Amino acid sequence: MPSIRFRIYLDSEGHIGPGKVELLEHIGQLGSIAAAGRAMGMSYRRAWELVEETTRIFGHPVTTRQAGGRQGGGAALTPLGEAVIARFRAMEAAITAATQEELTALQAEVKSPDQG
Amino acid sequence: MPSIRFRIYLDSEGHIGPGKVELLEHIGQLGSIAAAGRAMGMSYRRAWELVEETTRIFGHPVTTRQAGGRQGGGAALTPLGEAVIARFRAMEAAITAATQEELTALQAEVKSPDQG
Repeated sequence: MPSIRFRIYLDSEGHIGPGKVELLEHIGQLGSIAAAGRAMGMSYRRAWELVEETTRIFGHPVTTRQAGGRQGGGAALTPLGEAVIARFRAMEAAITAATQEELTALQAEVKSPDQG
Repeated sequence: MPSIRFRIYLDSEGHIGPGKVELLEHIGQLGSIAAAGRAMGMSYRRAWELVEETTRIFGHPVTTRQAGGRQGGGAALTPLGEAVIARFRAMEAAITAATQEELTALQAEVKSPDQG
């Protein structure tokens, strides 16, 4: 099925896209930045950088550190982190609904392989 | 102002985003792939590659060659090329309308510089 991927550009520098949002969702589910990164096939360092970038864009932390464990211990989402996920997914649903007709029409213009 | 950039992923490989669409628009206005590339600060080779990729995704040419000139001569959009632009811009308008409220709310969660 054809689909649309989008990124949000706020007035601050940087953008929020499906990668950062999925990472936040994994952190919420797994309680760890390292585990969330592993679930997405990225290093702890890369996952941590993406979380820091998101925090910088919003000017407030999107995760909070929890005691215990090695490699940064546990992590949980802040209310802002939860809000970022919820708003992104709401926008995704609105975009899917708003573009479905045009997207289907555009896909119909793609030559199917057996048309030669 | 916050904004959204999006890419369309069709069932074929590759995606259509604002760069390819803007290039097609320039080709339509300037009548030349080379001139369109220059207008966007890209080499003729890069512009030509993007046109070829778009043609591959749709399985039909999005531009047509016109006689005369060096470096590929003139170029014009095919009806498909025109349709790709029109549908992308229609989706863009639909997405802007559908996400405005959430986008404004998300922007409000960004700390303004003077909040310390």
